[in-house]
Amino acid sequence: MAQEYVTVIFQPSGRRGKVPKGCNVIEASRLIGVDIEALCGETKVCGKCIVRIEEGHFEKYNIQSSMDHVTPWQEDVEAKFINSEKKEKGFRLGCVAKIQDDILIFVPEESRAGKQVVSKAARDINIEFNPMVRLYTIELKKPDFEDKVGDWERLANGLSREYGLTGLTIDIVTLRTLPGVLRAQNWVVTVSVWNDKEVIRIQPGRVKKAYGIAIDVGTTTCAGYLCDLTTMQVINTSSMMNPQCKYGEDVMARITFHMTTPGGLKRMSDDIIEGINSLIEKAVAPTHPKKKKTKKAKGDDGPDEYREIIEEGVEYLRISKHDIVDLTIGFNTAMHHILLGLDPEPVGLAPFPPVIHHSLDIKARDLCIDINPSSYVFAMPNEAGFVGGDNVGVLLAEEPYKSDEIQLIIDIGTNGELILGNRHKLYSSSCATGPAMEGAQLSFGMRAAPGAIERIEIDPETQEVDYRVIGHDKSRKFSKPEEMKVKGICGSGILDVLAELYRSSVITKTGVFNKKMLKTNPRFRINPDNKQPEFVLAWKEDSSIDKDIVITQKDIRQIQLAKGALYAGCKLMMKRMGIDKVDTVKIAGAFGTHVDREKALVMGLFPDCEIEKIHGVGNAAGDGCRAALLNRKKRDEANWCARNVQYLELTVEPTFEQDFMEAMQLPHMKDQFPHLEGVVPDHVLHQGPKGPVKPEQKN
Amino acid sequence: MAQEYVTVIFQPSGRRGKVPKGCNVIEASRLIGVDIEALCGETKVCGKCIVRIEEGHFEKYNIQSSMDHVTPWQEDVEAKFINSEKKEKGFRLGCVAKIQDDILIFVPEESRAGKQVVSKAARDINIEFNPMVRLYTIELKKPDFEDKVGDWERLANGLSREYGLTGLTIDIVTLRTLPGVLRAQNWVVTVSVWNDKEVIRIQPGRVKKAYGIAIDVGTTTCAGYLCDLTTMQVINTSSMMNPQCKYGEDVMARITFHMTTPGGLKRMSDDIIEGINSLIEKAVAPTHPKKKKTKKAKGDDGPDEYREIIEEGVEYLRISKHDIVDLTIGFNTAMHHILLGLDPEPVGLAPFPPVIHHSLDIKARDLCIDINPSSYVFAMPNEAGFVGGDNVGVLLAEEPYKSDEIQLIIDIGTNGELILGNRHKLYSSSCATGPAMEGAQLSFGMRAAPGAIERIEIDPETQEVDYRVIGHDKSRKFSKPEEMKVKGICGSGILDVLAELYRSSVITKTGVFNKKMLKTNPRFRINPDNKQPEFVLAWKEDSSIDKDIVITQKDIRQIQLAKGALYAGCKLMMKRMGIDKVDTVKIAGAFGTHVDREKALVMGLFPDCEIEKIHGVGNAAGDGCRAALLNRKKRDEANWCARNVQYLELTVEPTFEQDFMEAMQLPHMKDQFPHLEGVVPDHVLHQGPKGPVKPEQKN
Repeated sequence: MAQEYVTVIFQPSGRRGKVPKGCNVIEASRLIGVDIEALCGETKVCGKCIVRIEEGHFEKYNIQSSMDHVTPWQEDVEAKFINSEKKEKGFRLGCVAKIQDDILIFVPEESRAGKQVVSKAARDINIEFNPMVRLYTIELKKPDFEDKVGDWERLANGLSREYGLTGLTIDIVTLRTLPGVLRAQNWVVTVSVWNDKEVIRIQPGRVKKAYGIAIDVGTTTCAGYLCDLTTMQVINTSSMMNPQCKYGEDVMARITFHMTTPGGLKRMSDDIIEGINSLIEKAVAPTHPKKKKTKKAKGDDGPDEYREIIEEGVEYLRISKHDIVDLTIGFNTAMHHILLGLDPEPVGLAPFPPVIHHSLDIKARDLCIDINPSSYVFAMPNEAGFVGGDNVGVLLAEEPYKSDEIQLIIDIGTNGELILGNRHKLYSSSCATGPAMEGAQLSFGMRAAPGAIERIEIDPETQEVDYRVIGHDKSRKFSKPEEMKVKGICGSGILDVLAELYRSSVITKTGVFNKKMLKTNPRFRINPDNKQPEFVLAWKEDSSIDKDIVITQKDIRQIQLAKGALYAGCKLMMKRMGIDKVDTVKIAGAFGTHVDREKALVMGLFPDCEIEKIHGVGNAAGDGCRAALLNRKKRDEANWCARNVQYLELTVEPTFEQDFMEAMQLPHMKDQFPHLEGVVPDHVLHQGPKGPVKPEQKN
Repeated sequence: MAQEYVTVIFQPSGRRGKVPKGCNVIEASRLIGVDIEALCGETKVCGKCIVRIEEGHFEKYNIQSSMDHVTPWQEDVEAKFINSEKKEKGFRLGCVAKIQDDILIFVPEESRAGKQVVSKAARDINIEFNPMVRLYTIELKKPDFEDKVGDWERLANGLSREYGLTGLTIDIVTLRTLPGVLRAQNWVVTVSVWNDKEVIRIQPGRVKKAYGIAIDVGTTTCAGYLCDLTTMQVINTSSMMNPQCKYGEDVMARITFHMTTPGGLKRMSDDIIEGINSLIEKAVAPTHPKKKKTKKAKGDDGPDEYREIIEEGVEYLRISKHDIVDLTIGFNTAMHHILLGLDPEPVGLAPFPPVIHHSLDIKARDLCIDINPSSYVFAMPNEAGFVGGDNVGVLLAEEPYKSDEIQLIIDIGTNGELILGNRHKLYSSSCATGPAMEGAQLSFGMRAAPGAIERIEIDPETQEVDYRVIGHDKSRKFSKPEEMKVKGICGSGILDVLAELYRSSVITKTGVFNKKMLKTNPRFRINPDNKQPEFVLAWKEDSSIDKDIVITQKDIRQIQLAKGALYAGCKLMMKRMGIDKVDTVKIAGAFGTHVDREKALVMGLFPDCEIEKIHGVGNAAGDGCRAALLNRKKRDEANWCARNVQYLELTVEPTFEQDFMEAMQLPHMKDQFPHLEGVVPDHVLHQGPKGPVKPEQKN
């Protein structure tokens, strides 16, 4: 009997392929090129390879998936790692479940191998210390017949007398703890007060530390920054994929899911809330050291200072989720609406009004976010259209409104968000770059993780390829094929690929493959399955996924669309502002940290600028969120920004389409970058035609 | 085989007895004297006789109860009336379930026959119209590219422009409804605003009506007053037993239950919340008329005006729970703490500090109270000790602090609460009257319902008894025995009984039975079971429960304790205030509405006062709660009262015990009531000894 094949799709990567019926999920993942953690080598003892079998018909993929499409649950092996609640939800061990029929498999973040190298690390930014939540320790007189006032009034009077806090209220959930806590350590308590207004936590004794977390919810990735609210130190950073990715890769796809699926909004909201709770868990986990009571030497105040557990006789064993008393969150308008359970439909329809611009203070318990239950979640305000609190975060972190220089700030995520201006005038806009710049949605796009091509060079004569991958310190030229273990191309490698393909005449200025190669170069070929042209960047023998790593015509179009949208957007904003040139370009997002500034400039990601005035500013959205966490004045500033930045809806600008088409061309002209003579290699700068090339076709 | 008997206890009345094994619950209830609604006469078709079989060992009653102690569930009959959720909880039809073994049965309020005659009806009190929640209707311009501001800002700007409401916020739950509601009736909406600060509801179109409910949670009974927040009209009143009665009859018993039972606080809290939700259901139920679209004639504005369903083209079909946008609640400190989940233990221990004095505004959803979920519950402030928001309610309703007259206000419930003072000085205190004055805890005490003795006369010569019962309009003398259908004595009959027993020399001045009667009067006897003396008020043939209705020595002690506590408390307060006489006595509670003022005065329930200056003021606590609902200034006034009334802890006063003992004697002396000559019948007034009688024994 001939071997039967079944279709398997892995989420969130969306990779699909046919695998022999009967292989297990781990084997299938290897065949398709998805990395699942499997420390024990499938001896079924490590429990790391947990995956979730999805149920239902997935129209997008034309696949019917069911838990019954794998072999049955093995109680003796799987119950050790998967509780009954998770079992109900379809979780299985990848090394146990054998695939019997077409299937959609979700790989949870923690089961994914190849941890992201480019983390959304926190930068050092200058934040004034003025947190929304502050600690006050107080010693009270216990009640007697002379002074029998109630517990709350006793506390409130004390806080007024000793700290001048008047008109305080107390949350009901905290009030419930009051009588017990007051009496636990002889009427000495430490109180967490929100905005000098409301008591949100009471702890027995003298407590010195309080914590907060700033969360950046991106369309594709999310990050959490756990901070000490007394020292402003970032204690830990955690990150994850946005679990909503399975509903669609960009914001419009998510809105469509809501509009077409009953209960879709709630599902997406529940998923991201669950994700945020796991992000919080991950952020506090490293503060649970195995060694207890290790007193640190004086002067030793390295980054793990938070592990210090004895200070002035007070013990800090570890940070629990409920020690987090404040939380700020930044997101684009669609992510904002979906997380908060607000209908995102109007935001997707002209004239794109959000449900709310202003920031919100919402009780954590009302959102089922598992921190101190009386605490508030601060949701950053929205600007307009899809430009939301994440862009406000970028503004808070970069403060262009305090500068005389005209700054162009590009935040490259699944949605590209642009800021242009200075203290006199500020514009913002967004453009649908798609996830290409994040390495997603390309045939072999991947996150910046081991096995990802990050730099590439193509010989203009032979079209031979040399490249480097993350996790291996020598280029292909100086390595054996089996050392490379290539899996794909990450965001920061993409511009390199595009530039080199063009420089070596593999593609033309319009981004079309040079078909002359077909007879001369084996790397260029027509894919027999989809009949599309593709170029091999790395051969199967260099790869850890047993496949040629290629870039397709469609991939190139995706990158062109992204860079064209960004460039045209920038240009239109400049036109509106009446300027020809910007003083500074800041590139936010992981992409900005790793991109080759010269290639980005020459490839026309953004308009001309002095090369030394181009900076990567990291995850500025997250930094702004952190600023709002640690300095309450930044929250007012956030609302001021959201109200005062002028949003431009690019798609309605009359010249946008034309500009966009032109900006898709490769590369921009020498005369547009005169100062680059000598800075950017000649062959790159001089290779283009003399003027903007007309688009190949126009609708 | 001899007939077997099993023990049955009915809750919340606590009545117990032995019944033949195999009889059904309805039959058992009749034998024991508990009325369960059974409209269809046990033909199993009306479904009115639903009871709940309690599970567990009930130490107080030394009984092991179980669902298995009745015959099995009859799906074909019972499933029609009892859903599976209720079935799980032990609900059964009383006419189906046959008793097989000892059992504790809870009779839900709605299954109890003999509706209370003395309802906690709302009085006409003068309230200034200034509700906390107000309606604003507004028509907005829909967004376009010229004006694409978000939904919330569009609304907030409109409310600011048209009504001068600035700095508004919006609750997240309401915000979720905003985009849909704005678009439902072409951008015309009606907004409910709390305290001019927060939007808590948005409805499409022009809405004219908003509703609120004031709830009075007593230790034994609870009442709800559904009000129209636009006209201040009381639309409906609902009442019920406090479902916590099963955990203990007075506040100390409830606190003890919390201290001795893990999870006890949560159980009691959940029960009263569930009770409040049913009270709300009951209050709105009559607004769901069967006839629709009946337009009322002009001028017809009777009490059912709320059934009007078309007004200026706007339809009001009915009031739903979610149309209730405001709720105020008054309770004593223990009920306050238990309902809100606050530890009531400190309030029961000297120096009795409550967890909080100040009023609280708590989101209804945080308490699981099922009204408009964004609305606030206003919990009235506590004074001190057990004197809580119910007493503040009495203050708000009677406003002694605005009067020159010195008022003594007695609120007779399970706890007696006293107010004394005028605009210059106010005292409050509480005394443990026990539930005797409410007709509870006496051998044949009952609520003021059909079958309850409300007036009694005993011939001083023959000790023959004549009496009247609620629900029958002739006295015993003019009726046939079988017409009387006596079941017990209600609160308002109790003072009559005491006075008549004394006047006819059945008891002495110290409240002890005159044992000389034993040989001469068959009504006086020693109970063969408990060896206690008792006096028969009504013979078995007059009774609907096939038993003699008696009053026991213990019952008389209970009444003496109650009246002694009240009188001594009043006297001590007067002493503290330095006065001999009060200008006005107000008696709050159902008791006050029905009591014979003269007998109350002569029996020494309170100190001397002009008889025409003694008033019953009904459920003043509930009235005050309603005032706070309809006039937000009353909420500030409530906090002012709670802070400024001086609480006296009677039990620590040095002379309290002595005063209390003396006040237990019957009756008070002629020379204490000189003005009563001619008003109160001679034989009553002149019968006592010349001076206060020393207590029989003293510890």
